[in-house]
Amino acid sequence: MNIQSFTPPNRILMGPGPSNIHPRVLKAMGAPIIGHLDPVFIDMMDELKSLLQYAFQTRNALTMPISGPGSAGMEACFVNLVQPDDKVVVCRNGVFGSRMLENVTRTRGRPVVVDDTWGEPVDPQKLDDALKANPDAQLVAFVHAETSTGACSDVATLVEIAHRHGCLAIVDSVTALGGSPLKVDEWGVDAIYSGTQKCLSCVPGLAPLSFNEAAVERLKKRSEPVQSWFLDLNLLVGYWAAGAKRAYHHTAPINSLYALHEALVMLREEGLENAWARHRHHHLALKAGLETLGIRFVVDAAYRLPQLNAVYVPDGVDEALVRQRLLNEFNLEIGAGLGALAGKAWRIGLMGHTCSKDNVLLCLRALNSILSDVGLGIQSGAAEAAARTYYRQTNGN
Amino acid sequence: MNIQSFTPPNRILMGPGPSNIHPRVLKAMGAPIIGHLDPVFIDMMDELKSLLQYAFQTRNALTMPISGPGSAGMEACFVNLVQPDDKVVVCRNGVFGSRMLENVTRTRGRPVVVDDTWGEPVDPQKLDDALKANPDAQLVAFVHAETSTGACSDVATLVEIAHRHGCLAIVDSVTALGGSPLKVDEWGVDAIYSGTQKCLSCVPGLAPLSFNEAAVERLKKRSEPVQSWFLDLNLLVGYWAAGAKRAYHHTAPINSLYALHEALVMLREEGLENAWARHRHHHLALKAGLETLGIRFVVDAAYRLPQLNAVYVPDGVDEALVRQRLLNEFNLEIGAGLGALAGKAWRIGLMGHTCSKDNVLLCLRALNSILSDVGLGIQSGAAEAAARTYYRQTNGN
Repeated sequence: MNIQSFTPPNRILMGPGPSNIHPRVLKAMGAPIIGHLDPVFIDMMDELKSLLQYAFQTRNALTMPISGPGSAGMEACFVNLVQPDDKVVVCRNGVFGSRMLENVTRTRGRPVVVDDTWGEPVDPQKLDDALKANPDAQLVAFVHAETSTGACSDVATLVEIAHRHGCLAIVDSVTALGGSPLKVDEWGVDAIYSGTQKCLSCVPGLAPLSFNEAAVERLKKRSEPVQSWFLDLNLLVGYWAAGAKRAYHHTAPINSLYALHEALVMLREEGLENAWARHRHHHLALKAGLETLGIRFVVDAAYRLPQLNAVYVPDGVDEALVRQRLLNEFNLEIGAGLGALAGKAWRIGLMGHTCSKDNVLLCLRALNSILSDVGLGIQSGAAEAAARTYYRQTNGN
Repeated sequence: MNIQSFTPPNRILMGPGPSNIHPRVLKAMGAPIIGHLDPVFIDMMDELKSLLQYAFQTRNALTMPISGPGSAGMEACFVNLVQPDDKVVVCRNGVFGSRMLENVTRTRGRPVVVDDTWGEPVDPQKLDDALKANPDAQLVAFVHAETSTGACSDVATLVEIAHRHGCLAIVDSVTALGGSPLKVDEWGVDAIYSGTQKCLSCVPGLAPLSFNEAAVERLKKRSEPVQSWFLDLNLLVGYWAAGAKRAYHHTAPINSLYALHEALVMLREEGLENAWARHRHHHLALKAGLETLGIRFVVDAAYRLPQLNAVYVPDGVDEALVRQRLLNEFNLEIGAGLGALAGKAWRIGLMGHTCSKDNVLLCLRALNSILSDVGLGIQSGAAEAAARTYYRQTNGN
């Protein structure tokens, strides 16, 4: 075994996440470590909570990052809110709905699945029907921004339906946070989790989470202990409580939290609405270019996430080979299709720091070049030119 | 809310972990992010597995870091190996034994607790007695290096007893890995987890884990699904499998894994036995100085961990004030007592990169200064002088 220090290549990450990390965030993460019970660190944790409240647009006191990836955030919601035999309606329109279902089963809840077509948003009518047919349901779970398809569901409407039937709503917003509108309080979301490696452009490994009072109430009223010690919010609340009350639970991922703090400071500097607008702006430029290449979107324009562009692979094209060439020849990563879209789609991410004019143009130039090369009869440079026209017309950068 | 970029102070971390991180490790972590399914990253993951096998002294194929802190590593062992109603003998001689017990309960196992005195190692005879009285037990769990007391238990003997009674052994080695002898294969350990922020001097947030074939066999024979999706090793094995077989599970904490890779490369450069010897060497220097101050160790010398020095607070001393002054006046963090030792002990860590002559001397100088100040009648500079004598006599650095 002769293993040397690892030096990664410089990639442009336009897949479904992680996105590229801003140098300021990498620099923050590389600061010297301090203890997780150091008063200075505790002040930083308090700031982090405020910054996350801003990003989520919530005043929920229980707003904090879980010390694990997005899937740990998902699990935190389910293990804390579901008790054995609780009936949970899970809306499934992609991979992450299926994962929610797994979580219900493993917490010994009774799932009711509402299936929607992949690439379409969750259908409010179907949810309403399912809740009418299951008046004993206690929770509704769905994905806001489905990372496997790029479809955006109407959170406010779905939450309203859940509440009307006496249910709390658990929302997966891993791919939306910081990239497209998300208003936790205004929309009445009860429990939500996200990830840091998408539109926040932070390192992967943290899962921002927020519970409103109704969710906390439900947690407190549990008759059985939470099945996960590590994710038990009754204990985590003690760890993330303000100031002197802090109780040891686990050792926080200190340097990753530095990174999240800086990523959120940058989000505040830009302004949340401006960040949403930026994602939409570059999405439209990308769209102009992709359409020139004859590439079709999986999701209808009305429900399309700007930060995750799932598109069909043109007929006769070896999709894996194209991704491999993009990576090897252009240092550019785009994502493969997942689940029902495996082999049929690409997922082109425009997330956080990666979402810029330079990257849109690079991606279009590279794709155009390779697709011209494999003989699709596409004019060289056409896609980039279309995007440049869009930018010129909108005075956009 | 006026929140600025966060700049931590420069602390010397001589608590129970985290330890200080070597600049090489921080630099590795700050390298640009690449995708977690990038072939270059997958090669790095394979190297990481080899490096962890070296650190654990094992050939176990299932050796990898869990994407969460040490307590997630603990939970990974229990949720994968315990099924409802399985009888598990838990040896408890400190905080982390209690946490193991929590894990058994929450996985709906039937725990049998073997209590030992805090500050003493697990008593092999008591374990043997418990197993004789519980012939239906299937698992034994204990802590190798108890972070709450600094006591080291005899892993090889305890594992041998477990096996003689037909049980598998789950071992917590969070504080030992890289700091004091640990030989997973030679000692026959079935399942083990550790942390990265102790003697590996890496960032917190990862939990190295290793299962031998018997543990994998037990996992495969489960009749019920693992209660945690996030920690289900059946799925994680697919994610960490060699080369092309890799299946998406979650987004790995990529930059933290860069850091772990570099920390382990450094451990190999030093050599595991040399690292163990270094921890012992500086422990003896620290001990020479502390004894000059009249400070007594909690743990008998025969069972004392060199990397975690739990010592009694001298009578009449306000222990929290001393820690506060060390932090504010010397930028030096030492740990408070935990659980039964809260308010009565300090925990002085000498872990990984922090374990050096300079830090030993600083710690003794600072403690001596403050204790002289509060009027304990201790001669100024005596502790440092004693350590310097030890270093001179051993030609040590």
